Amino acid sequence: MSAPRYDVLAIGNAIVDVMSPCEDELIEELGLSRGGMMLVDMERAHELYDAMGPAREISGGSAANTLAGLSALGLQCAFIGQVADDQLGEVFAHDIHAVGIDFDTLPRTGAPSTARCLIFVTPDGQRTMNTFLGASQFLPADALDEELIASASVLFLEGYLWDPEEPRAAMKKAIAAAKAAGRKVAFTLSDAFVIERHGDDFRALIAAGDIDILFANKMELAALTGEEDFDTGLAQLAPKVPVLVVTRSEHGAVAVSGGERVDVAAEPVGEVVDTTGAGDLFAAGFLAGHVRGANLKDCLAMGAVAAAEIISHYGARPEEDLKALVQKRFD
Amino acid sequence: MSAPRYDVLAIGNAIVDVMSPCEDELIEELGLSRGGMMLVDMERAHELYDAMGPAREISGGSAANTLAGLSALGLQCAFIGQVADDQLGEVFAHDIHAVGIDFDTLPRTGAPSTARCLIFVTPDGQRTMNTFLGASQFLPADALDEELIASASVLFLEGYLWDPEEPRAAMKKAIAAAKAAGRKVAFTLSDAFVIERHGDDFRALIAAGDIDILFANKMELAALTGEEDFDTGLAQLAPKVPVLVVTRSEHGAVAVSGGERVDVAAEPVGEVVDTTGAGDLFAAGFLAGHVRGANLKDCLAMGAVAAAEIISHYGARPEEDLKALVQKRFD
Repeated sequence: MSAPRYDVLAIGNAIVDVMSPCEDELIEELGLSRGGMMLVDMERAHELYDAMGPAREISGGSAANTLAGLSALGLQCAFIGQVADDQLGEVFAHDIHAVGIDFDTLPRTGAPSTARCLIFVTPDGQRTMNTFLGASQFLPADALDEELIASASVLFLEGYLWDPEEPRAAMKKAIAAAKAAGRKVAFTLSDAFVIERHGDDFRALIAAGDIDILFANKMELAALTGEEDFDTGLAQLAPKVPVLVVTRSEHGAVAVSGGERVDVAAEPVGEVVDTTGAGDLFAAGFLAGHVRGANLKDCLAMGAVAAAEIISHYGARPEEDLKALVQKRFD
Repeated sequence: MSAPRYDVLAIGNAIVDVMSPCEDELIEELGLSRGGMMLVDMERAHELYDAMGPAREISGGSAANTLAGLSALGLQCAFIGQVADDQLGEVFAHDIHAVGIDFDTLPRTGAPSTARCLIFVTPDGQRTMNTFLGASQFLPADALDEELIASASVLFLEGYLWDPEEPRAAMKKAIAAAKAAGRKVAFTLSDAFVIERHGDDFRALIAAGDIDILFANKMELAALTGEEDFDTGLAQLAPKVPVLVVTRSEHGAVAVSGGERVDVAAEPVGEVVDTTGAGDLFAAGFLAGHVRGANLKDCLAMGAVAAAEIISHYGARPEEDLKALVQKRFD
């Protein structure tokens, strides 16, 4: 086994976020599920876009956001994901390259267009996401370079990829390749509704020992374990994965590994502007610490710092110097 | 002459801004002219985009920004401008419709793509703009509905439109239509470099009495008059136009009309994040007051409030409730 070329290789949906502030009433009028992620077809996407106020476009995608955070923290990263050969595809590729991430998946020609996520941000900073998967759902298994997968210490995957059929098959292949090369697999559960759809798959992956580091939020923990009570759910899931990290919004986060449980408080934030990417960036901070061999407490602290940065502005990619923020936290 | 249907009809470049923060050094490395607007071809646009950090896309265009401000202040507005039949064209159309502006210019099929402006924002909030005009330069004279022009109290034009040939011809036609209908023409000089290229045209328009309300900043005033000294330039230009408005960045603005000169200080701003659109929104505030018959002092105050809002965040379209901000200023 040669030395890894990358710290983290992520495979994820390649999405541009279309974000707009909105009043709480609009969420109801549009029949949206507040705080959740819904998959929408092109027609519904147009309907929602028409109802949306002036928007800004910022590259997103859960695993890609995490990778942007990892890269900002100094880790060597590569991304695999499917865009179309269009303007939003160029935007996505530009933004991920611009933060120093290797990304060589060829754009897909023809319809559908690059994925976009219509995000309604209510005055409390909560985001309600509506994803048109577009080209992203056609990530083919042969886009997965097994050598590339073997060349990264950690393979990072998002649960969202289980929705579309081709990427789901590709992910299973990727996990096998990572495991065969003796690498770690990190997995984020993404969304409670995704777990409703694919919980059996996720539980099977966990049971098979395919997941080394599992990220969830409290709703996803409940959805996966069927336990309403946080501590009960945590106690049920923790023994099944080497490292379990669960975020609890404003109540911080907890990590359990080898029977040890550590809690961390949320970092103070001046104003919560937009919570899009909070979980993604928590994962980035934690994983950056983990890859470098930090203890659970420090990994959690790094996660909390990265999450606090991301919720203080629009968009799910870091704008401030994450390295400096982490440094300051540990001074 | 029937009652006007619109308060303001603007004709402008239909542009999506691609904005990214950058260090001062990058401006020098790329050979850019700090604070100015350069026209770039597709090749140079790609070169600059490659050198740019992660960006966000927000609808822009000088006259379109002014119109967004006017609409936010409650005026009835319509826009004419040329986008391509592509994703950025959809973004532009969505954002302008979403603020209640009528915009019916048909997208242009085929190359080139919708215009974009690559904006590098230095830590002091100064913006350096590089515009790829794309489809915008092909606004045909027959896109100008003369009835529509006659139906608006004020025709608002940007000097930037003088760069591409077709829109320049279209503008002259639009001015004639507005004048024939007894409407006012407001004109913004846009940029000192544009004046270097088209100053003779602008001076001819002024001499012909075609411009009723002229907006400039201090650099543009100097470029148009050839006078380095602000007051000398102002004294030279003011008698030639019914209303002259000159902005002076952090030193506020001045308006001269019928021999009366009024100065206004800049509104205090917490942090100057991005000055893109400061002049556009000053024009919006001033014009909103003017259309409603406010005196010069109040028009200037409204301009200052709108400009202060826009420089406190990324992007050149208002995010806060401009009406409420103006109300607060006058309480």
